[in-house]
Amino acid sequence: MTGRGPILVINPNSNAAVTAGLDAALEGLRFEGGPAIDCETLAEGPYGIESQRDADAVVPHLVRRVAERPDAAAVVIACYSDPGLHACREATRAPVFGIQEAGVTTALARGDRFGVIAVAEASIPRHLRALQRMGVLERLAGERAAGLTVAESAESPDALDRLRAAGEKLRGDGADVVILGCAGMARWRGALERALGLPVVDPTQAAVAMALGAVRG
Amino acid sequence: MTGRGPILVINPNSNAAVTAGLDAALEGLRFEGGPAIDCETLAEGPYGIESQRDADAVVPHLVRRVAERPDAAAVVIACYSDPGLHACREATRAPVFGIQEAGVTTALARGDRFGVIAVAEASIPRHLRALQRMGVLERLAGERAAGLTVAESAESPDALDRLRAAGEKLRGDGADVVILGCAGMARWRGALERALGLPVVDPTQAAVAMALGAVRG
Amino acid sequence: MTGRGPILVINPNSNAAVTAGLDAALEGLRFEGGPAIDCETLAEGPYGIESQRDADAVVPHLVRRVAERPDAAAVVIACYSDPGLHACREATRAPVFGIQEAGVTTALARGDRFGVIAVAEASIPRHLRALQRMGVLERLAGERAAGLTVAESAESPDALDRLRAAGEKLRGDGADVVILGCAGMARWRGALERALGLPVVDPTQAAVAMALGAVRG
Amino acid sequence: MTGRGPILVINPNSNAAVTAGLDAALEGLRFEGGPAIDCETLAEGPYGIESQRDADAVVPHLVRRVAERPDAAAVVIACYSDPGLHACREATRAPVFGIQEAGVTTALARGDRFGVIAVAEASIPRHLRALQRMGVLERLAGERAAGLTVAESAESPDALDRLRAAGEKLRGDGADVVILGCAGMARWRGALERALGLPVVDPTQAAVAMALGAVRG
Amino acid sequence: MTGRGPILVINPNSNAAVTAGLDAALEGLRFEGGPAIDCETLAEGPYGIESQRDADAVVPHLVRRVAERPDAAAVVIACYSDPGLHACREATRAPVFGIQEAGVTTALARGDRFGVIAVAEASIPRHLRALQRMGVLERLAGERAAGLTVAESAESPDALDRLRAAGEKLRGDGADVVILGCAGMARWRGALERALGLPVVDPTQAAVAMALGAVRG
Amino acid sequence: MTGRGPILVINPNSNAAVTAGLDAALEGLRFEGGPAIDCETLAEGPYGIESQRDADAVVPHLVRRVAERPDAAAVVIACYSDPGLHACREATRAPVFGIQEAGVTTALARGDRFGVIAVAEASIPRHLRALQRMGVLERLAGERAAGLTVAESAESPDALDRLRAAGEKLRGDGADVVILGCAGMARWRGALERALGLPVVDPTQAAVAMALGAVRG
Repeated sequence: MTGRGPILVINPNSNAAVTAGLDAALEGLRFEGGPAIDCETLAEGPYGIESQRDADAVVPHLVRRVAERPDAAAVVIACYSDPGLHACREATRAPVFGIQEAGVTTALARGDRFGVIAVAEASIPRHLRALQRMGVLERLAGERAAGLTVAESAESPDALDRLRAAGEKLRGDGADVVILGCAGMARWRGALERALGLPVVDPTQAAVAMALGAVRG
Repeated sequence: MTGRGPILVINPNSNAAVTAGLDAALEGLRFEGGPAIDCETLAEGPYGIESQRDADAVVPHLVRRVAERPDAAAVVIACYSDPGLHACREATRAPVFGIQEAGVTTALARGDRFGVIAVAEASIPRHLRALQRMGVLERLAGERAAGLTVAESAESPDALDRLRAAGEKLRGDGADVVILGCAGMARWRGALERALGLPVVDPTQAAVAMALGAVRG
Repeated sequence: MTGRGPILVINPNSNAAVTAGLDAALEGLRFEGGPAIDCETLAEGPYGIESQRDADAVVPHLVRRVAERPDAAAVVIACYSDPGLHACREATRAPVFGIQEAGVTTALARGDRFGVIAVAEASIPRHLRALQRMGVLERLAGERAAGLTVAESAESPDALDRLRAAGEKLRGDGADVVILGCAGMARWRGALERALGLPVVDPTQAAVAMALGAVRG
Repeated sequence: MTGRGPILVINPNSNAAVTAGLDAALEGLRFEGGPAIDCETLAEGPYGIESQRDADAVVPHLVRRVAERPDAAAVVIACYSDPGLHACREATRAPVFGIQEAGVTTALARGDRFGVIAVAEASIPRHLRALQRMGVLERLAGERAAGLTVAESAESPDALDRLRAAGEKLRGDGADVVILGCAGMARWRGALERALGLPVVDPTQAAVAMALGAVRG
Repeated sequence: MTGRGPILVINPNSNAAVTAGLDAALEGLRFEGGPAIDCETLAEGPYGIESQRDADAVVPHLVRRVAERPDAAAVVIACYSDPGLHACREATRAPVFGIQEAGVTTALARGDRFGVIAVAEASIPRHLRALQRMGVLERLAGERAAGLTVAESAESPDALDRLRAAGEKLRGDGADVVILGCAGMARWRGALERALGLPVVDPTQAAVAMALGAVRG
Repeated sequence: MTGRGPILVINPNSNAAVTAGLDAALEGLRFEGGPAIDCETLAEGPYGIESQRDADAVVPHLVRRVAERPDAAAVVIACYSDPGLHACREATRAPVFGIQEAGVTTALARGDRFGVIAVAEASIPRHLRALQRMGVLERLAGERAAGLTVAESAESPDALDRLRAAGEKLRGDGADVVILGCAGMARWRGALERALGLPVVDPTQAAVAMALGAVRG
């Protein structure tokens, strides 16, 4: 086993409600005798990460935070833009996972062609750049926006309907597995999976599961 | 959560020692309160899967076995050739993971370019076909054979030396993460990781970790 | 010349009417002084191959049959899913062709971007996996289903109309050459080619033509 | 059947000895009752095509010649640079095959990764451009030069040794099928195939076999 | 600096009005003390290049013209089909730019996904072949025809409206940068850029700017 | 023309000697009547950018600086890691060029397969990530390290010898055009081009030439 410390999940925005949502979504991966899963909020982050500029601005703070936690057995950066992933890897010997990478690669092991539900249109070009960097565009069926704010994605009563509508479009695009393209939508994962009849991947859960495998291998 | 049954790990060859090795390698992913991880041997399988013909011949037996276990919350096919992956997905509603797919996709989330250690040269073309099907060849740094039999890979005193030699060649090829390209080499994972100073992924552990994420999401 | 035996065309389903259709479609490639073209039905096959499970289940029978025919100068597996292609190559020194591979590669030599007409929607994901494995997705304009059963594809009076409708959609997708994505549609090839004004490739004819080239080179 | 005329094979260089060699290499594909295979020399061509400039210069002459032969049921441009392939397709309704495209696509249906033997180093960049245009670079194991002049490739007593040496290097590169990367090397195909124990594709034979399939489908 | 001669811009069609348009479009890149930019008409060219045949037919004349101008510090072939690009490179030591290559590669440095406006539908397959040869199809958002003749593209009062309509479709395809896919549309570049609110690249200007960089580096 | 202001070239490290070198290297692109080319040092940058962490840390400062200069007609980020490229594009309406993107895309228009000379081995993985994100890995012949510090790359008497040695290796890898993979090596461009007999691209010059084209189109 790689280490005995906790899996550290850092929410790089400063919205503690998002962190609380992450914390709840990871409850199923906490086990008696298993590693602790510590979720924390990056105090220096913006309230939401909505641009490349926002994503890049948190990197020095993330790097510092990762360096301050040598006790962590693994680190998960819980923002779908994967800010600072490579810089944080330079700052620790522990495995560092970005949730976009973990969500997408997990989806590659669940089906033939994946679809992504973005919170909003504006995120799609940023996500496509990341998919191109990962070299997996050939497996992408499509990315569709749910037309939600980050706040709505966690709480709005019609969020599930909008996610389902986006998921149905992705099915029409040829997707046989769907990724929730934001850290804050885990609470809808199970219901959306049942509604669509397709596997739905929450990227933070996917990243923490990979971290468990790395830590307990 | 998707289901409450066990994670079923099927070794498609009939060598019970390999199954016992898998069972031991997965100990770290068994938790109080977590899903059971059942490892079983496919009685109808060959003693070892050493050709495409061997891999294809086990598929009807795997499909039948998967269909017989509707209680399984997730299924892992524990042979690096991923025999019957898509056929088994047609036979159950539970998630089905192939260890090659899980190992490779996990490696994609650990580094930039992955290397694979094959037990023997003869497996490499079969693996490359799979990587091409997955659409991830652009991320492959190389695949190198350790020059071991499957039996030696589990027990030979010089197995670690040979794995290390193959791993060093992969580093020279540009790999920053290494995959053990066989179900039976997990016992060397930690030592090889320390020897190389690179992340080393055991594909069965990777698949079971993904299964945990799917089952407990 | 590689060999003097027949070109063996195996229909891996057990529907003798399909075999008879193949036999008729290959009449133009039988020549005085040329190799015999033997079409046979795989008795152990299902009545139709409609899933990955069906495709995988025939492989051991195909391999055995190929091994029983060392007299064959070349072998053609006449099912568009290319079942057992690599396993059969291990079982004989003769060239073995899958009709999907032969149809697609022939289309690559006839135009810039190819389209595929599938009998039914359900086959498309299986075909896309094969195209990805072949590394030729960049040349795919699209795949469209004609909405026929295998039986209808051979006999239905409106089959040609449906094929033409699918072909016109493929032209709209940018295809300048069209592949019939099933072993049983050869009788419509010429008429469809005239109706569309685009080259139409029958994959079994394409495979037997390649086999002729291999045998008589 | 698409047409009843001959398969017209045009050697775009003016070296009649090359044409005679092509003619002999195609003997195995001439059948009683089958299409005639007419080989002709392009009088306006250079003595050998050794540069992009040479290849481009023959195009207007090829186009004119193709337009003068509306009786041809299919056309094969018998130079591995595929000069004028797309322009000739605009000049006739008959199928037009370039031997590089036909050789490469046939090789894709014979193995997993192909190797190419070039006559000389200087041809390799031109060939790589064509492979990139075809979108098949992912399947290329390598291209190696035999170090022959075109004249030597047809006649030199040590040509087979040099081809074998290049073929062995390609096997080391991972090739499981080898293409003769020039119109003039067909006479060595069988001997090289036996020497290497790998399938060897002569591109002109491959193109004429495809033409047969197109004409007699 | 590579050379002190002019940048030679050759219009490979014989329409002097097109050359005059190019000349005007390049005014902004002529500087006191900078290289001369000589635009000339290829007398032997067709009035317009509208087919692969037309494109190929000008190559010998282009090669001769390039060879006659060893004084040129750089050469630009000002037709979006890039006729003779590689052949001309064999004929001079000066850098030779094709405007399609220059326009596309410049667009790759301006945005994530590029769109191309073709004058007419018939050019699109030819352009896609070129993009495939360049290995950049993954970055293509789409290509759309403006439905103009070459003459209209330079002069028609509603040309801008049609270009804008095509550009809006490309935005819908995901393009964040647009290329004018013809040598004759430079006069609309600025207005179209303002109308769309996206960067618009004129390929001849892009090629001459690259030539400036090569000559003055 | 897009704007009348200067082309702003920002050196994101705080080493003023590097900025002075850039300034000198761009002399050939300053023209009477042309745009000013202002080179400035980012005071908040590290002395050298030698890691992903360094690259990411300068982004907020770069974004601020770009926002402070709305007068700039175009912006060039003069570090081969292209730090902050997409974030800076959000901060201004002017075109923003990264020198890696500009150098690589310019090289794509100069030859078939490009090679990159890195200052040191440690930069290569970072560069490969960028090439993968750009979707151009298929055109990469190789990247080789010169084994220089950034300081040596500008001043060491044996720098040219080391660059030449790396360039010769790249030629062996199949490169027909070479990129200097650092902002500080422009002074060697001409001499290296003459020594290798291959085009050599300085990325800062390439970016400024593209900026000229954008500003003066």
